Amino acid sequence: MILVHTPNPKEVAAYLELFRAAMPERQFVDLEHAELSAIRHLVTWGLPDGLLAEMPSLEALFALGAGVDKLLARPDLPADLPVYRLLDGGMAAQMTEYIRYGVLGYQRNMDLYRRQQATGQWRMLAPRLPSDIRVGVLGLGEIGAAVARSLAADGYQVSGWSRSPKDIRAIRCLHGESGLTQLLVDSQVLACVLPSTPDTRGLLNRQRLETLPQGAMLINAGRGDLLDQDALLALLDNGHLRCAQLDVFTEEPLPADHPLWRHPAVAITPHVAAITLRQPSVEQIVRRLRQLAAGQAVDGLVERAQGY
Amino acid sequence: MILVHTPNPKEVAAYLELFRAAMPERQFVDLEHAELSAIRHLVTWGLPDGLLAEMPSLEALFALGAGVDKLLARPDLPADLPVYRLLDGGMAAQMTEYIRYGVLGYQRNMDLYRRQQATGQWRMLAPRLPSDIRVGVLGLGEIGAAVARSLAADGYQVSGWSRSPKDIRAIRCLHGESGLTQLLVDSQVLACVLPSTPDTRGLLNRQRLETLPQGAMLINAGRGDLLDQDALLALLDNGHLRCAQLDVFTEEPLPADHPLWRHPAVAITPHVAAITLRQPSVEQIVRRLRQLAAGQAVDGLVERAQGY
Ligand SMILES: NC(=O)c1ccc[n+]([C@@H]2O[C@H](COP(=O)([O-])OP(=O)(O)OC[C@H]3O[C@@H](n4cnc5c(N)ncnc54)[C@H](OP(=O)(O)O)[C@@H]3O)[C@@H](O)[C@H]2O)c1
Ligand SMILES: NC(=O)c1ccc[n+]([C@@H]2O[C@H](COP(=O)([O-])OP(=O)(O)OC[C@H]3O[C@@H](n4cnc5c(N)ncnc54)[C@H](OP(=O)(O)O)[C@@H]3O)[C@@H](O)[C@H]2O)c1
Repeated sequence: MILVHTPNPKEVAAYLELFRAAMPERQFVDLEHAELSAIRHLVTWGLPDGLLAEMPSLEALFALGAGVDKLLARPDLPADLPVYRLLDGGMAAQMTEYIRYGVLGYQRNMDLYRRQQATGQWRMLAPRLPSDIRVGVLGLGEIGAAVARSLAADGYQVSGWSRSPKDIRAIRCLHGESGLTQLLVDSQVLACVLPSTPDTRGLLNRQRLETLPQGAMLINAGRGDLLDQDALLALLDNGHLRCAQLDVFTEEPLPADHPLWRHPAVAITPHVAAITLRQPSVEQIVRRLRQLAAGQAVDGLVERAQGY
Repeated sequence: MILVHTPNPKEVAAYLELFRAAMPERQFVDLEHAELSAIRHLVTWGLPDGLLAEMPSLEALFALGAGVDKLLARPDLPADLPVYRLLDGGMAAQMTEYIRYGVLGYQRNMDLYRRQQATGQWRMLAPRLPSDIRVGVLGLGEIGAAVARSLAADGYQVSGWSRSPKDIRAIRCLHGESGLTQLLVDSQVLACVLPSTPDTRGLLNRQRLETLPQGAMLINAGRGDLLDQDALLALLDNGHLRCAQLDVFTEEPLPADHPLWRHPAVAITPHVAAITLRQPSVEQIVRRLRQLAAGQAVDGLVERAQGY
């Protein structure tokens, strides 16, 4: 029995239909029809607290997303349960659009023209070509590497940062703490698509944000807890940073009275940079279920010790 | 003697330096050092009124831009003077960026998220892929064809419109009045890069804007007089159109008290969508001067009868 659960019943119904069509030989159920003790596989995001403890036969969990920080933080998650996450599944293309929008707006001064517009000011700013702009991408995984490649193809000067060393054509690949400083020092736009792990939480603190050049832009589409939001506000206010485009926040939904909402240099989106697309997600998970049944190797396994 | 003149003396100095380096055998001068009666070639934008009448030896005029509507409207322009304009010269890439920014923002609902942000509203909107968005490009010349191709490569459904029939891969090419209606009816984003001519002035009137589907976006980066600004405001206010990104206006600079400045659904830039880049412009004009001297065919000749 394979349990499919998200907090949205309509979404569950849509997933069930796709799974049953793709794998008619297996039994996919929603929470209401599940015999919890018989559940061997679980496809989910936003599972109610404590539920995992009621599934003693669980052999594998398939997360309906790329980031698994919330899931790994659950006290009811068995330490040895294999957790699989989505690899791209249409998210890399969406994230590329989201970050491209921010970078393009920065390059073309659209944020500054918007501010001029607020005061009815007609003033041409010095034009800049993509090759004039240095972008630093934090995270060179499934999503970050695609973002970095695409920005390089657009003509930007791109550096990227990861935990392990990489070699990606047309990208200056850096890693480790010294690599991070190297990247920060000259990134006019810093685009973060890191996962939230014990090592990355709080990474974008005041000191690191101050390492960015004067007038830089921050895009955070990784996770909210990577960034010190107060430090960001302070550096926007003192003029060290020019603007920010934020999709993720320490607390989501961002509380209605939070100062980020009203800051003229901040663009806020409600965690929509790259959403899970049903069809490719179902295809990935079905493929993995088949591979597991056949005793074959399966990709997307989360390294529990690393936190991603 | 070749006169180089723009309203900006620093710009003239920069152009003179480039021209002299590229063609040391010819004499390039600024207005101050020009013997007007001896001027045979003129490189310019924004020439003072009446000046053309003082250059009886003028054989050709090289406009430092793609659009020549202002120039052709001058009463002192001899009817038989050959006028050459810039072909692309880096403008197509800039225009592509400008229009891509608008289309991408529309596709990703960035305008709506900005409006939600103004009221602190955290609400996810239905995501859309590029293939869900139909874009109509008015003008398929040097710039418009490049824009259309690039949008198609980004995955959008692209239609284009021109005076003469065209055949461009991956673009639905339309022409003439019936072609225009066909394009308007289903363009969720209408991007205008037409020249201003006797035939195109006033083209985007209320009736044509109403032909666009409910919730459409308008981008105008052609010329301001193509668009009825009052009709645009009315259709934004009654909700037929969702938003607009405007680079050109009936009167430039846009008067400080104009309602377009304050409209929440309008993004305004001060005629910077695609600016003339000096180096490629000088290269184009030098090539033409050489070809003229050698009696060879020269591109970029404006069809005075057509107005572009
Ligand atoms: N806002 C949204 O809508 C949205 C949507 C999807 C995903 N996301 C976020 O994006 C994250 C990345 O997704 P993905 O699929 O690209 O994940 P991924 O394939 O696991 O890539 C993670 C990248 O981060 C790097 N990294 C991890 N820890 C690091 C550390 N301590 N120092 C330096 N680099 C480190 C990894 O380095 P190595 O390559 O060396 O392992 C890898 O390059 C997700 O975890 C999620 O938080 C957000
Ligand atoms: N905002 C800015 O910063 C900026 C910068 C550069 C240019 N521009 C504007 O962009 C315009 C286009 O530049 P370009 O270099 O692409 O010009 P172009 O090569 O002359 O192309 C003009 C296009 O418009 C079409 N067209 C002209 N009259 C038409 C009519 N009556 N009906 C239908 N289509 C018509 C032409 O059709 P055919 O192909 O059939 O001739 C052609 O496809 C310039 O004239 C200028 O106004 C603005």
